[in-house]
Amino acid sequence: MLEKPAVENVVILGLGLIGGSLARALRKSGFASRFIGYGHREGSLKRGLELGVIDEYSLDLDEAVSRADMLVIATPTLVASSLLEQILPRLKNLPHSPIITDVASVKGSLRDTAVRVHGSMPPNFVLGHPIAGSENSGVDAADENLFVHNRVILTPVEGNSNTAVELVRQMWLSTGAEVVDMGVDEHDAVLAATSHLPHLLAYALVDALAQSDASDDIFRFAAGGFRDFTRIASSDPVMWRDISIANKSALLQAIDLFSAQLGSLRSAVESEDADALYETFSRAKAARDQFSAILAARSD
Amino acid sequence: MLEKPAVENVVILGLGLIGGSLARALRKSGFASRFIGYGHREGSLKRGLELGVIDEYSLDLDEAVSRADMLVIATPTLVASSLLEQILPRLKNLPHSPIITDVASVKGSLRDTAVRVHGSMPPNFVLGHPIAGSENSGVDAADENLFVHNRVILTPVEGNSNTAVELVRQMWLSTGAEVVDMGVDEHDAVLAATSHLPHLLAYALVDALAQSDASDDIFRFAAGGFRDFTRIASSDPVMWRDISIANKSALLQAIDLFSAQLGSLRSAVESEDADALYETFSRAKAARDQFSAILAARSD
Repeated sequence: MLEKPAVENVVILGLGLIGGSLARALRKSGFASRFIGYGHREGSLKRGLELGVIDEYSLDLDEAVSRADMLVIATPTLVASSLLEQILPRLKNLPHSPIITDVASVKGSLRDTAVRVHGSMPPNFVLGHPIAGSENSGVDAADENLFVHNRVILTPVEGNSNTAVELVRQMWLSTGAEVVDMGVDEHDAVLAATSHLPHLLAYALVDALAQSDASDDIFRFAAGGFRDFTRIASSDPVMWRDISIANKSALLQAIDLFSAQLGSLRSAVESEDADALYETFSRAKAARDQFSAILAARSD
Repeated sequence: MLEKPAVENVVILGLGLIGGSLARALRKSGFASRFIGYGHREGSLKRGLELGVIDEYSLDLDEAVSRADMLVIATPTLVASSLLEQILPRLKNLPHSPIITDVASVKGSLRDTAVRVHGSMPPNFVLGHPIAGSENSGVDAADENLFVHNRVILTPVEGNSNTAVELVRQMWLSTGAEVVDMGVDEHDAVLAATSHLPHLLAYALVDALAQSDASDDIFRFAAGGFRDFTRIASSDPVMWRDISIANKSALLQAIDLFSAQLGSLRSAVESEDADALYETFSRAKAARDQFSAILAARSD
């Protein structure tokens, strides 16, 4: 628990799993004294109030923004972009700008929106991305420990105020997260490779199989490896549609890198090139085993 | 426990996880009275003896085959093919042929070997494939319950003796498995789609990322979705090299089906076709959710 709150009011735009968990975590750490929810769906906001996740809510964006010391845009990527377009012009009418941050999975598209709307990067808008999730969603699943030992990537850019960046960093550190800085493009490339591409591959595989003539048998005889491999194909289609478009450029690069590799493997299978198959599979196994070791060390 | 053993001697060729687990399961069910191991690595056979998995072992293939009432080739695909080439000619010198079955992941290549060596399908050779595995391997991991509630696919072909097929079926049923019959080509297509292709995709993804400049960051920031998606890339490279070649034709078809689907998704990302992305992702999610329901029902 911090000795005294770093800020007075935190306003959460979009009270789902991430926004709700952040409010709970910041209440626990004492980072802020008051949590205000904003959104379109009054049901979620009322529920957040009942659960003690937030202290009050507003359905009016002007009011929500004007009350904020820290404003967290906790919506999916495209909604975050649209909210940013509405918020940035309003800041000019305020005596002082709140610190603004977000949790979206793609950073380049939000940076571009901010620069386009504001003319340059707003000093107080700090791009952030907590790498955390859960099988569950919605404010009912909000968990004050969701970010503990998980990583949060901040992608500060030229024009950002150092004070703003450090306050956002303090906010995330107070939740128990490990905070890492990275460039916007690097973030988007890494996330394309480790998250956006795998989702696309899982969707592509499951949809291709579901449309095949043997789909009944396929799903009947699929075993544990298939279950794990395709789990992410149960993810929210709207969220992944938006991410795919928002991170288009990095995702296309990742698809092309992967397709080239798959093409090489296909050739090796076709020509029964046992050595090439063995080399690729062995290198991949070594890398994956090393990744397992990293994961094991992290959970210690 | 069966009232009396269906056969006297079961000979296991290759005493690893599957062969060892089968011996344990058949001992428990009372299907056979004596279990004899055969292999090249005496260490595994001695260990099997110490653990009580087998009652004796032989390093001599002629001796092992001549003692068998039921002969189980429990090796990976290509070794199974090579053993079959050695075993089938020996049968002509025996007063009666044992029933022979196998556990390999690809059935067409073994059928072709048998027909080539024997001139036609040997009546007593019944192709089988237990869909079971474990993170562990080797005879130390042998588990009498490995097959309980798991599926075993038999692919009887023209020329098989009905008695042989039914005895192999009884054997697997006695382990607690659910036994299903399927055509050889159908088996190989279904396994290519649900197992062989996903392994190839996971290997291709991990190897592509491991070779990229950002590989350190990629593995550092990968989260749970990536972990599940790539788990099978830690599988045995030798086994998967052999499967890829043995099931070449069905695997190439599965790769091409998948690549066409990935190509469509790539076009949709490039042209920012939100509707096409949403439709594909939604169909895939529906199919994957249905698969989850099948899995949940199965574990009841």
